[in-house]
Amino acid sequence: MTRRLPDHIDGYGPVRPFRARPVDKAAKRRAQVPLFDSIDAVVDTLDLRDGATISFHHHLRDGDDVMRAVVDVLAARGLRDLHVAASSIFPVHAPLVPHIRSGVITRISTAYVAGPVARAISAGELRHPAVLQTHSGRARAIATGALPIDVAFVAAPSADRQGNLSGAIGPSACGPLGYAMVDARYARRVVAVTDNLLDDRLASIDIAGNEVDAVVVVPSIGDPTRIVSGTTRITDDPVSLRIAAMAARAIDASGLLVDGFSFQTGAGGTSLAVAGDVAAIMRQKGIKGSFAAGGITGTLVEMFHEGLFERLYDVQCFDLAAVASYRTDAAHQAMSASLYADPSRRDAVAGRLDVMILGAAEVDTAFNVNVTAVGGGKIIGGSGGHADTAAGAKLTIITTRLSAKGNPKIVRDVECVTTPGATVDVVVTEAGIAVNPLRTDLIARFVDAGLPLVSIEELASLAREQTGRTNDKSRTSGNRIIAVVEYFDGTVTDVIRQSG
Amino acid sequence: MTRRLPDHIDGYGPVRPFRARPVDKAAKRRAQVPLFDSIDAVVDTLDLRDGATISFHHHLRDGDDVMRAVVDVLAARGLRDLHVAASSIFPVHAPLVPHIRSGVITRISTAYVAGPVARAISAGELRHPAVLQTHSGRARAIATGALPIDVAFVAAPSADRQGNLSGAIGPSACGPLGYAMVDARYARRVVAVTDNLLDDRLASIDIAGNEVDAVVVVPSIGDPTRIVSGTTRITDDPVSLRIAAMAARAIDASGLLVDGFSFQTGAGGTSLAVAGDVAAIMRQKGIKGSFAAGGITGTLVEMFHEGLFERLYDVQCFDLAAVASYRTDAAHQAMSASLYADPSRRDAVAGRLDVMILGAAEVDTAFNVNVTAVGGGKIIGGSGGHADTAAGAKLTIITTRLSAKGNPKIVRDVECVTTPGATVDVVVTEAGIAVNPLRTDLIARFVDAGLPLVSIEELASLAREQTGRTNDKSRTSGNRIIAVVEYFDGTVTDVIRQSG
Repeated sequence: MTRRLPDHIDGYGPVRPFRARPVDKAAKRRAQVPLFDSIDAVVDTLDLRDGATISFHHHLRDGDDVMRAVVDVLAARGLRDLHVAASSIFPVHAPLVPHIRSGVITRISTAYVAGPVARAISAGELRHPAVLQTHSGRARAIATGALPIDVAFVAAPSADRQGNLSGAIGPSACGPLGYAMVDARYARRVVAVTDNLLDDRLASIDIAGNEVDAVVVVPSIGDPTRIVSGTTRITDDPVSLRIAAMAARAIDASGLLVDGFSFQTGAGGTSLAVAGDVAAIMRQKGIKGSFAAGGITGTLVEMFHEGLFERLYDVQCFDLAAVASYRTDAAHQAMSASLYADPSRRDAVAGRLDVMILGAAEVDTAFNVNVTAVGGGKIIGGSGGHADTAAGAKLTIITTRLSAKGNPKIVRDVECVTTPGATVDVVVTEAGIAVNPLRTDLIARFVDAGLPLVSIEELASLAREQTGRTNDKSRTSGNRIIAVVEYFDGTVTDVIRQSG
Repeated sequence: MTRRLPDHIDGYGPVRPFRARPVDKAAKRRAQVPLFDSIDAVVDTLDLRDGATISFHHHLRDGDDVMRAVVDVLAARGLRDLHVAASSIFPVHAPLVPHIRSGVITRISTAYVAGPVARAISAGELRHPAVLQTHSGRARAIATGALPIDVAFVAAPSADRQGNLSGAIGPSACGPLGYAMVDARYARRVVAVTDNLLDDRLASIDIAGNEVDAVVVVPSIGDPTRIVSGTTRITDDPVSLRIAAMAARAIDASGLLVDGFSFQTGAGGTSLAVAGDVAAIMRQKGIKGSFAAGGITGTLVEMFHEGLFERLYDVQCFDLAAVASYRTDAAHQAMSASLYADPSRRDAVAGRLDVMILGAAEVDTAFNVNVTAVGGGKIIGGSGGHADTAAGAKLTIITTRLSAKGNPKIVRDVECVTTPGATVDVVVTEAGIAVNPLRTDLIARFVDAGLPLVSIEELASLAREQTGRTNDKSRTSGNRIIAVVEYFDGTVTDVIRQSG
């Protein structure tokens, strides 16, 4: 088809003429996805080179064996200078450390890193600075092309012969594959790795087969007993329970706990206790919430089953009760990392949250929160969705004790800014509640409710008295930067330097 | 928070430092959306100026009264040179014509326009060329900022006091507000216009209140009896029924009609007949499909209720049976115009379709399809989702008679290219089936199945013999361009010139 078109049309502007491209519908009509019986075999087809970016998700958490298996294969083939873009990295990924030392892996981008890989980065063993993203910042970087992925390796608890993938069923069922959905959509090549290939078409699909280029069937993708992370158990510490009860009272006083209420907690023990206390208030007042989001836990599933929430929006399951609910409850819906928290999306779930409960390693007197690095450059995790949800929620509450292990947690200046103070509304401690002074409407409501308000500076003083310490360090500003801390928009909130 | 950050980090690159912005969470915590009792009252708050772009959706189809009411108000205030960006324009919008003549409206962008407004454009009465988009092209243009919207006016069958909107219930219930979802997400200001304000929170939400800046309550948003368009009734013409039966046989022979089958039809009488015939084959062979998409009709709802499809993905309802199903069936899910068909989305439903059934005003021997303009510049509609789904589906079938009203429909060269031939696989007529010669796999399958194959050139000859005419016109290439036909990627497939 060739139409003679003008270059420019008055009242319209310059004309970009349509050019017919060949459309390979026969390939689209392909009945089945190519199957491979080993990672080695599929790598033969991938044209991976030195310097390539490979991506992974963390839905199997500390049970994942796919990242290790893939990197081992690539290392055995002599590849160098790989960029590992993983949504999170856990202690189970210790086998990556030798590959970091040998130069097989020289770049890491991730939203959370803990364990031996974190220690290797802190020790300066990774050639280039690690890039610590937020969950939505990672999704944005992938979607905009700022972080191009050569091959996404997707650990898939189940796959069918059309290449459809599901986390709902299989021996390593982990719930929705929300983080991997973004990788699958934008990576140049998408390889699913599964230990559960089904002949029948999957009934519930997290990632559609038209996004998947190949499926590798392996004996095991990981250890399903370790999908549940140690951070997802409710607290039994009396101080933490008191903090949780005070946070629930603050939520009640905020005016947001009415019909249609929406809620998210992290997976920490105190956050889960807050959820329990909020449930009690909702029950007592007959409040019917709209949705809970997350990181879904058994606690939120129970609230949903009780009718306290209409729906669950789930980017990843934190425990097996959540996985079981995802498998059976129609209103327990998967969301991608993008739908969860992409700040450019007006429909992002994080932006529709009423209340978000978050933890902290440190909070400073400007309400900045650190969950990334302590003790002079020791990386302890990272934002995950911390900065994303703090910015999105109508009411962001940090629950924390004044101190831990003899160190103050409320400080003058956090070692590393993960979540900017402008997005944090309330800090709840055992010594009272500090409200960000920008939030005058909340202060008025909390005063009316008789809540124990204190200033953040008072909390910092109490923490200093309790521990006899400050966290003030002589910043070794000349030292090498071993990690860059990115906000969700790709700007840099902080850097982490090698200690000593 | 101020961190001293380097301008550049080796191994990372240039650093864009985070700058804290004020976060107005008090506004986010606002309990209720601002309410107005007239369009005039809300316009006072909008700072609309000459040249502004205002958008509308077409979910109320030929029953919509909101576009007229808004433009009347703006005209009465003396505004000029408005750009109307409507997802579609119907005969009911005849009252816009005087505003076009007087210069109140000088630009129109739309995916479909029929009736008096189309005739006014064809007659050269609109100052600037109309831009005829596809449904997904419109969504892409809005999302990328190529088509910035100053105010989106969203006709809402129901709204609650938080500003949540739903098309599921209310006297003008029309089904999911899929086209308006894109406008609501990206427009600078979003004004909902409703005749059904609820005190209770909506249970089912198409557009969330955090995307809505104001709600106007008016006595009526339109005539609910005219939401059903005349194009959604099944054919009873014997020739069309024969064409439909042949199309169903072609689908059966394609190899795509297996478990997991996905399907979309337009709302034309022949398309609906194809759906009925496909249902009969599925029933007979015990095939369980995955989803039907669209433009949902009562015919597809019946197939879903019978268990022939697991889910319905619905961007707009074509009839009241579909609206009733959307209200009650959980697996009848809303999709935005973007999720429906955005070509940049790997998860777009149109790209996951097995089979798409489409109509045509003209098809040419290069398989190009025209549904936009005939008879020398007479605009008769436009792509809507025609070009989008043709490109996305694994098998795109055009059903058409050889001629209509004495004019050939299979021609040497279509008057206007709506859908490029490279994306069209099969043309089914009463005289046999023409397969795009690029689709050798289909040709083999159809030969095996004993289907009556003919070449597209033969069909054009038969059409010429039947009518004694060609559509060849002396193209008046110097005449004024009155409309620009855009493909979904924003390139131009054709222009329409004023006749005479």
